[in-house]
Amino acid sequence: MTHRFPVQVYYEDTDMAGIVYHANYLRYIERGRSDWVRELGLDQNAMREKGLVFVVRRIEADYLAPARFEDRLEVVTELASLTRVKMGLTQTVYRGETALFRAQVTVVCMTQAGRPVGLPAEICALRA
Amino acid sequence: MTHRFPVQVYYEDTDMAGIVYHANYLRYIERGRSDWVRELGLDQNAMREKGLVFVVRRIEADYLAPARFEDRLEVVTELASLTRVKMGLTQTVYRGETALFRAQVTVVCMTQAGRPVGLPAEICALRA
Amino acid sequence: MTHRFPVQVYYEDTDMAGIVYHANYLRYIERGRSDWVRELGLDQNAMREKGLVFVVRRIEADYLAPARFEDRLEVVTELASLTRVKMGLTQTVYRGETALFRAQVTVVCMTQAGRPVGLPAEICALRA
Amino acid sequence: MTHRFPVQVYYEDTDMAGIVYHANYLRYIERGRSDWVRELGLDQNAMREKGLVFVVRRIEADYLAPARFEDRLEVVTELASLTRVKMGLTQTVYRGETALFRAQVTVVCMTQAGRPVGLPAEICALRA
Repeated sequence: MTHRFPVQVYYEDTDMAGIVYHANYLRYIERGRSDWVRELGLDQNAMREKGLVFVVRRIEADYLAPARFEDRLEVVTELASLTRVKMGLTQTVYRGETALFRAQVTVVCMTQAGRPVGLPAEICALRA
Repeated sequence: MTHRFPVQVYYEDTDMAGIVYHANYLRYIERGRSDWVRELGLDQNAMREKGLVFVVRRIEADYLAPARFEDRLEVVTELASLTRVKMGLTQTVYRGETALFRAQVTVVCMTQAGRPVGLPAEICALRA
Repeated sequence: MTHRFPVQVYYEDTDMAGIVYHANYLRYIERGRSDWVRELGLDQNAMREKGLVFVVRRIEADYLAPARFEDRLEVVTELASLTRVKMGLTQTVYRGETALFRAQVTVVCMTQAGRPVGLPAEICALRA
Repeated sequence: MTHRFPVQVYYEDTDMAGIVYHANYLRYIERGRSDWVRELGLDQNAMREKGLVFVVRRIEADYLAPARFEDRLEVVTELASLTRVKMGLTQTVYRGETALFRAQVTVVCMTQAGRPVGLPAEICALRA
């Protein structure tokens, strides 16, 4: 599966170096993941009412080139690995054909008390 | 009462104009309020477990001069008005003697469902 | 003129009260302003290369009702007043028909050194 | 060298899961780096006036346990590797003795146009 999600760079995203502040790419790719799981039919509000949340376990991120104010970017999310309790995603931020940022993200599911649980059925169904 | 709280400007706070992004002053003064209510003996975590939160109702903010990276600022918080259900605070961000930002902030207390409740006793005690 | 701009609430926007953190509405309405001036034909990157930036001088903001994760909001921007050097905007954040946040925003134009200059011609043209 | 830097968790840092939003750890460790280079005698404002900025090239981050509102954290920064053009830092966020977040961060120095340059002398001096 490949999920594509548009992001526009606003003033709030930039820093005094005139480029997107490095931590903000994590916000961009999280928006991409939220949009992707919504398209899978998952309701994160309903999950949370049941006391379940997605938790990022690990991120390996490479900053390849800077994004700037007014840039129209695309977050491309691909499923790299999937077990019953853990998914690995490759998420790349592109401006046109140019990859600006690429991350390997490991996501698990937990109770709000911090106990690991299996991933939701909508995600597990992707294993087929 | 007058409460003073130090803030240091970091890279994350700046925007591509080379100054502190305007929305971030609201984060700065909120840190000042959190520190102030903690000093009053209020535990916002315990409040939240009881389903109560402080809610900002209104802000009137004047941007007087820009703050820049590495600036050491001070948030000065003063109680301007206080009823059983609502407090008015004057919060000013200074760099040395220079006022950079000043806001009149109206804060109430609510249940997480959004029902207004009286302010905590630690605040009401300031009416004397 | 009335400008409409969609905003989706993401995880990054929420706080531990389960609602949108109050300072983030300032980010939302700034996105609306950026989109509006772009539609007017203004290039803020080009302005900045000439050393000019828009600066918020004053905000009066009322928080009417909370926004929550996954909400689809709309920022409605209306020109309230306009002189050669200053514009007043009324910006309201709606969820459907419900106004959640409303602000009166005063914006001026400055050199990066902080000297006030007239508003760009594209804005002044709206005075007709 | 080991650099220690205190961080207090504020409302702005939390998300609706009631914990620190994952991207904000990158802000915390960046504050630690800024404080560390300032102590080394480096003035990032002066660097920027000469057109030079520090750029994060790569981050490998492990999320070990969540931080919560009001937590007092400590960012511990250690130099892991250093060449003339690149430094590797290990940065860990602790609450007391408990490591909550650990990252390997690769930082380089660039002109604002994006051309790699050598690290500042104050950093290179650490190679001895």
